[in-house]
Amino acid sequence: MAQNTLEKTSVTVLGLGAMGTALARAWRTAGHPLTVWNRTPARAAALAAEGVRVADSAADAVAANTLVVVCLLDDTSVGEVLAGADLTGKDLVNLTTSTPDQARARAGWARKRGARYLDAGVMAVPPMVGTADAGGYVIYSGSRELFERHQETLGVPLGTTYVGEDAGFAALYDVALLSAMYGMFAGAAHAFALIRREDIDPAALAPLLADWLVAMAPTVHHTADQLRHGDYTRGVVSSLAMQVAGAPTFLSTAEGQGVSTELLSPYFDLMRRRLAEGGGEEDLTGVIDMLVRRPTPHGEVT
Amino acid sequence: MAQNTLEKTSVTVLGLGAMGTALARAWRTAGHPLTVWNRTPARAAALAAEGVRVADSAADAVAANTLVVVCLLDDTSVGEVLAGADLTGKDLVNLTTSTPDQARARAGWARKRGARYLDAGVMAVPPMVGTADAGGYVIYSGSRELFERHQETLGVPLGTTYVGEDAGFAALYDVALLSAMYGMFAGAAHAFALIRREDIDPAALAPLLADWLVAMAPTVHHTADQLRHGDYTRGVVSSLAMQVAGAPTFLSTAEGQGVSTELLSPYFDLMRRRLAEGGGEEDLTGVIDMLVRRPTPHGEVT
Repeated sequence: MAQNTLEKTSVTVLGLGAMGTALARAWRTAGHPLTVWNRTPARAAALAAEGVRVADSAADAVAANTLVVVCLLDDTSVGEVLAGADLTGKDLVNLTTSTPDQARARAGWARKRGARYLDAGVMAVPPMVGTADAGGYVIYSGSRELFERHQETLGVPLGTTYVGEDAGFAALYDVALLSAMYGMFAGAAHAFALIRREDIDPAALAPLLADWLVAMAPTVHHTADQLRHGDYTRGVVSSLAMQVAGAPTFLSTAEGQGVSTELLSPYFDLMRRRLAEGGGEEDLTGVIDMLVRRPTPHGEVT
Repeated sequence: MAQNTLEKTSVTVLGLGAMGTALARAWRTAGHPLTVWNRTPARAAALAAEGVRVADSAADAVAANTLVVVCLLDDTSVGEVLAGADLTGKDLVNLTTSTPDQARARAGWARKRGARYLDAGVMAVPPMVGTADAGGYVIYSGSRELFERHQETLGVPLGTTYVGEDAGFAALYDVALLSAMYGMFAGAAHAFALIRREDIDPAALAPLLADWLVAMAPTVHHTADQLRHGDYTRGVVSSLAMQVAGAPTFLSTAEGQGVSTELLSPYFDLMRRRLAEGGGEEDLTGVIDMLVRRPTPHGEVT
């Protein structure tokens, strides 16, 4: 398809959940010709009323444009929805939440059908779409050629970050960032639980909590540096041994406030196991290796 | 003791571990007359060489000044070290790490001995002391009179925040903030573990991780708002039901990468329990209540 630089790239969007609808609307607002499809047609009604072309089938929607953006419930839905579509020569961008293994398998599946494939992990919620300063973005991996060809179009609804040719990397980064976020949320939940029975306004704790988490988040750069060099004793301020020594204060404070330690104990347990293995002089970085199963001499993993 | 506004307040520091030494040095540098004491006298040698007066006993050090700052190993040490000292009329500031219950008991103990008492939680590591823009600070609670009288002096080594008359609150805030930090560290550890077997530089993940955590930390304000109003369905973007539906992607990605889910599962388990209780339309705030033991009809706590 010849592409005129004055012409906005036409986009097909499959899947009009909250995110798919927000993406489609951002492209429409920016003047990109759009074809959409959704399994439940009612979901397309609002966009149809705004003048967007609604295809009768997924296959028709795919046939309409080279750039096909898929934003469905899960990986199984992707296979089902695209089963009857001709993907030859298509630029398939998959924003459906999936695991790295699913993304890699889907990339192979798409290539066999003659499509270029780019997988994506969306680091945003629908209200952030189309709002440049909201900070939302999409992590892409897979076909670099596809990414470079469509980077401008892909950048319309949300910022873009490309992390490599491995189609599984976008999902892996996505899951890694969101897993870290859940850890932070778990920590914050424990913190709020600790003051629940006291005459303390949660809104008095919140600013200190937000500032402290923001101040401590950049320590991940130090962790990365230690991991790269395989030396977890570089620049240690509070050693693992010191931090394990402090654990009883955390656990008995929770006990005293009537708060379960179920979110806190697993990390301290891991610290204690690393200490028992001789990591007392290290930073907390060693616990990362404790999480990864290691091959045994017999080739099994533990 | 008459206090000349041109004169710097004299300070006694008991306990010269890394933090006590850093505090003492910051006051010395700012020109405050100083008396120090440490159970192991060798630890005081460096300060003595800088011209700081080293007392022969804790009782002598306490007798030297009205403002007495204690920075010892634990609460038991505080009782032992101050057992033979006359605390009448003293302004006792306790920076020793303790639980809220220990701090409250210590406040009563100090008052019985005729001292004003201020408890403290140190949100800093020693290298941050005396460096105004490093962001370290100390949370104080207990005698407001003591805090206001000495706020300027206390603010020399690190910033100050006062959180109330309850002597246990400083320790509670301290433990709450650090517990939340450990949750964030646990989440980051899981994230780094996920990429451990891949050809991904940890230093490529770190900036995305730091930015994402910084971007998500302010959601604690929203959580506080929901807690205050007792309504966890206010302004929900991703409902608990949606987030529980996403859990298998996180757990099977960990499985696929050979990473233990021990740090991640407890939070998802709690979400599932809240969902089972009917919280599907809520934000994640409801899990906080699941952590707090509730009185039963028989007056026991579960």
